[in-house]
Amino acid sequence: MITNESQMPAGRPRSPLSGIIPPLVTPLKDNETLDVASLERLIEHLIAGGVHGLFILGTTGEEQSLSYGMRKQMIELSARINRGRLPLLVCISDTSIVESIRLAGVAADCGADAVVSAPPYYFATGQPELAQFYEELVPQLPLPVFLYNMPSHVKVSFAPDTVSRIAQSERVIGFKDSSANAVYFQSVMYRMQERPDFAMLVGPEEITGECVLLGAHGGINGGANMFPRLYVGMYDAATAGDLTRVRQLQQTIVQISTTIYTVGRHGSAYLKGLKCALSLLGIIDDDFVASPFYKFNAPEREKIRQALAALPTALCRP
Amino acid sequence: MITNESQMPAGRPRSPLSGIIPPLVTPLKDNETLDVASLERLIEHLIAGGVHGLFILGTTGEEQSLSYGMRKQMIELSARINRGRLPLLVCISDTSIVESIRLAGVAADCGADAVVSAPPYYFATGQPELAQFYEELVPQLPLPVFLYNMPSHVKVSFAPDTVSRIAQSERVIGFKDSSANAVYFQSVMYRMQERPDFAMLVGPEEITGECVLLGAHGGINGGANMFPRLYVGMYDAATAGDLTRVRQLQQTIVQISTTIYTVGRHGSAYLKGLKCALSLLGIIDDDFVASPFYKFNAPEREKIRQALAALPTALCRP
Amino acid sequence: MITNESQMPAGRPRSPLSGIIPPLVTPLKDNETLDVASLERLIEHLIAGGVHGLFILGTTGEEQSLSYGMRKQMIELSARINRGRLPLLVCISDTSIVESIRLAGVAADCGADAVVSAPPYYFATGQPELAQFYEELVPQLPLPVFLYNMPSHVKVSFAPDTVSRIAQSERVIGFKDSSANAVYFQSVMYRMQERPDFAMLVGPEEITGECVLLGAHGGINGGANMFPRLYVGMYDAATAGDLTRVRQLQQTIVQISTTIYTVGRHGSAYLKGLKCALSLLGIIDDDFVASPFYKFNAPEREKIRQALAALPTALCRP
Amino acid sequence: MITNESQMPAGRPRSPLSGIIPPLVTPLKDNETLDVASLERLIEHLIAGGVHGLFILGTTGEEQSLSYGMRKQMIELSARINRGRLPLLVCISDTSIVESIRLAGVAADCGADAVVSAPPYYFATGQPELAQFYEELVPQLPLPVFLYNMPSHVKVSFAPDTVSRIAQSERVIGFKDSSANAVYFQSVMYRMQERPDFAMLVGPEEITGECVLLGAHGGINGGANMFPRLYVGMYDAATAGDLTRVRQLQQTIVQISTTIYTVGRHGSAYLKGLKCALSLLGIIDDDFVASPFYKFNAPEREKIRQALAALPTALCRP
Repeated sequence: MITNESQMPAGRPRSPLSGIIPPLVTPLKDNETLDVASLERLIEHLIAGGVHGLFILGTTGEEQSLSYGMRKQMIELSARINRGRLPLLVCISDTSIVESIRLAGVAADCGADAVVSAPPYYFATGQPELAQFYEELVPQLPLPVFLYNMPSHVKVSFAPDTVSRIAQSERVIGFKDSSANAVYFQSVMYRMQERPDFAMLVGPEEITGECVLLGAHGGINGGANMFPRLYVGMYDAATAGDLTRVRQLQQTIVQISTTIYTVGRHGSAYLKGLKCALSLLGIIDDDFVASPFYKFNAPEREKIRQALAALPTALCRP
Repeated sequence: MITNESQMPAGRPRSPLSGIIPPLVTPLKDNETLDVASLERLIEHLIAGGVHGLFILGTTGEEQSLSYGMRKQMIELSARINRGRLPLLVCISDTSIVESIRLAGVAADCGADAVVSAPPYYFATGQPELAQFYEELVPQLPLPVFLYNMPSHVKVSFAPDTVSRIAQSERVIGFKDSSANAVYFQSVMYRMQERPDFAMLVGPEEITGECVLLGAHGGINGGANMFPRLYVGMYDAATAGDLTRVRQLQQTIVQISTTIYTVGRHGSAYLKGLKCALSLLGIIDDDFVASPFYKFNAPEREKIRQALAALPTALCRP
Repeated sequence: MITNESQMPAGRPRSPLSGIIPPLVTPLKDNETLDVASLERLIEHLIAGGVHGLFILGTTGEEQSLSYGMRKQMIELSARINRGRLPLLVCISDTSIVESIRLAGVAADCGADAVVSAPPYYFATGQPELAQFYEELVPQLPLPVFLYNMPSHVKVSFAPDTVSRIAQSERVIGFKDSSANAVYFQSVMYRMQERPDFAMLVGPEEITGECVLLGAHGGINGGANMFPRLYVGMYDAATAGDLTRVRQLQQTIVQISTTIYTVGRHGSAYLKGLKCALSLLGIIDDDFVASPFYKFNAPEREKIRQALAALPTALCRP
Repeated sequence: MITNESQMPAGRPRSPLSGIIPPLVTPLKDNETLDVASLERLIEHLIAGGVHGLFILGTTGEEQSLSYGMRKQMIELSARINRGRLPLLVCISDTSIVESIRLAGVAADCGADAVVSAPPYYFATGQPELAQFYEELVPQLPLPVFLYNMPSHVKVSFAPDTVSRIAQSERVIGFKDSSANAVYFQSVMYRMQERPDFAMLVGPEEITGECVLLGAHGGINGGANMFPRLYVGMYDAATAGDLTRVRQLQQTIVQISTTIYTVGRHGSAYLKGLKCALSLLGIIDDDFVASPFYKFNAPEREKIRQALAALPTALCRP
């Protein structure tokens, strides 16, 4: 599924995974109940929107806040709804290597295409420990792996040399960087030219345009949950080198970022704003956010409604 | 067990938990196998050493690196070996509230006396979110709770006002601070005078003496795994106001800290050094450290051996 | 000088300062002696290389390490050598507002075109204090002002709203961002569209290409001290929308960054590597670095020599 | 003046500087005008209060916010008012080694007893660079030196080994730690036992009691500007081992800290609160704070007034 020509687990892919792969929110009724109908609606919305893959249980998917039972359920349901239409990537980040491997097993059993792993995030590792950890983990995984750089939550960043060392294994097929540090991203991209099949994907949607213009393969952009066509449009414009269109779409992307993700004072504003907007757009029913976070109250919800109303009208008509 | 007079779950304890409560290392054979014989030896060693409680699955106990199955097993075995001789505290820190509650249930079923909880450690909360989280969590726990401040790993520190707000619930019976920030500890201790039954416990063994001299109730000190009498001696000297003895024992405690916990360049040096020393002392068999960390190789092990040999001889004769 | 049509101090410029404005190193013989001949050679090298302005006394220029007497001398000499050929920007960052104003006075007396100011960098301010500080500072300055964002050294970052608030004054004509956080840069650029005359300049040379492609006005790139044509070429390619050329030049720019700025283990590696390379290239005589830093010894110097030798040959032939 | 028996510059002192050495606020009329009458009143108040030394131009003295002219004036006036009654310590921290040396020269000319130096605080050094810097600086200083650890403002902390390496020079006679990290302080104190003449002084007043109980020599406590007898009382109680008195005084010290230093949201709350309280107590006339900070407005001032009124009455009657 990752490439058209070959099943990814069976052989080295000819070309890296490319395009917009939204990090799906996890629609919830409460801390213990997945909202299956909303998940179906969300996945159909994304596929109709032209995205190039599905990434579940990432930071946007609140993986760490979910019980293991629910993580398993989310993998099974997403795979079933997807029906192999798009590459399915499953985040298996955990502080316990045993639980990571177990989750990867579930993903493989459900027919997922790859797993995504951020470093253990409790007790921060040094770089040699980090490399050694992945040298231990990767061979035990039944699926190809994307590394996931997320220093604000994980406290450690993959040094470019560490990425290169871990990617000595051909099972490691790509890198998602959510650091927002564009100098760092350029350094890793430069380092990884040695692996032309290695996908360089960027987390923050505000910089997907510029990263793709410089050679990145795509974006894992939370906003694509709401407006998949917008982010796919940005990806297409950037790969086509259409700078006028890139700058035009960038206006809307940064408008979304600065109005929908900034209501509320804490780091969780992004997550609350995104889920709130998705419920206002009718894509998910409830904007329940798993503990330790809590969905917006009426005043914040009203601000999100206004922020949506201020967006270009074409966007909000599905 | 927390107080002599009453079962803690049944009523508000008359006096706070006091003394030295070692954060037990988790003896391992590999990532999936607990070393039961070593755990027995360790617990007997600690009880014989006069400690005042047992704290399992903390940072020193590598909770986050262990699978859920092993966490459960560690609770069951520790409770069985302890046979109610000492108060048993179980760390239930997790990023998922559901898993935290589940672990607390296991602890209660096994007869533990209290649980210990650090904030969710992936996506950092703001202070109001943190308070709200505990207001949701605490009533769902079957045991009294100690809050656990560990900002270096958790990225967020309980503001003194947040501790006070959470401790409006009488189910919250104490606080363990591992920040090493003594100004902060004094601020929380000052704030919590409103709750004379509230235990103020300090993590870093290097400052247990001074904190107890100023009114803290005790220490959750990793070094007590090796030398319980030393840390109990420090606690006794401090509660007796014997400054000469406090300063004398402090010499050895800082010697341990600066020689045994500082071999190796990364933050994990503490954990590796402690387990290595325990195996050299014959208290645990193997010094296996769970992924993403790895036990010392021969050169580092030799340094630990020398560091042990340089300690006052009385210490190392069990 | 900032625009072709008008003297900047006399009226609001029609268009923002654009292009490559190198942050000049300060050639030194020792902590108290400026190397005037090297400074002349450097400025002529830059002008011949086609740069669009000169920026002195920035982080690359070691402003903070220089005595006030030497800062004054550096301004006077640079202005005299420049002879008005290029816009001259002078960094006046200081922890004391009085000294900042004094330095700006020197800059104005010498005919500089603008000053550049990072926030006071000892005791970090909150955002309202930061805005209030600039509302106090800007009216006392005899020249237009660029704000300089440098959170790694300054500990505080201008919030986009703070930039906008400070830029209510038309005397504030641009922004240099050295955060490397491209999401942040996009947010500020989006916010400042309200001021079409406001220059958005980026510090790290590794991302000048992508930022200019997205609408930034130019780069204040340290590497331009060595190879002005390379960075001017990148600027030209990006403004022309020549993506093939952008990606090609990017290769060399990241090669420089990852080989010349990474010898040595500390943050100062950039500064030492840059000065060392400049002396090897014959642009400055000695690579003396002011205290608290120290120039490379022979082994590191040899690595820089090799890194230079590995660059495309066209680059190193002036 | 540092010891009774000998002039410090002339020979190695027999015993380390001990006791309470307040870091004086700098009374100001505006950014360019020292309030001489207030300074006289402050110094007389401190000497009458029994303090053991005077420390000027530290963080509390707003050194970095003052022009060089005013720093010079502050040294001259303080020395003249002091008339050799107490050891006078002058902070010379600067980002420029040349300016540090110049300031030390002024201090020596005015008869100060020692200088105090925090690391350069713009471009953070690595530990070897830090050691090398002091090996260059110390021999050029005409007075003995105290090292000043202030990582929150300086971004770098002296490693214990670095302190020891720098203190190979007998000109380095003590250490002031403002990190609030008590584990760190114990590590440095342990390391520096090799130098019995080396003064270990602690910045935060909330932990002076416990540090002195464990062997520290005294405190450089900002609150002593207001209530010198309180902090001298704490020092005396701790050196006498009077734990009852220590805990009693600690109540008031933490009350001051949590009510007077916490009005206002930013890091500057300490400075603003301290100066505001001093003006309310009549010790200084105006509570002007140098840019980039600004004194409290009426509502905050009222809170400080109430905080003072809530203190034990004996304190506020001089």
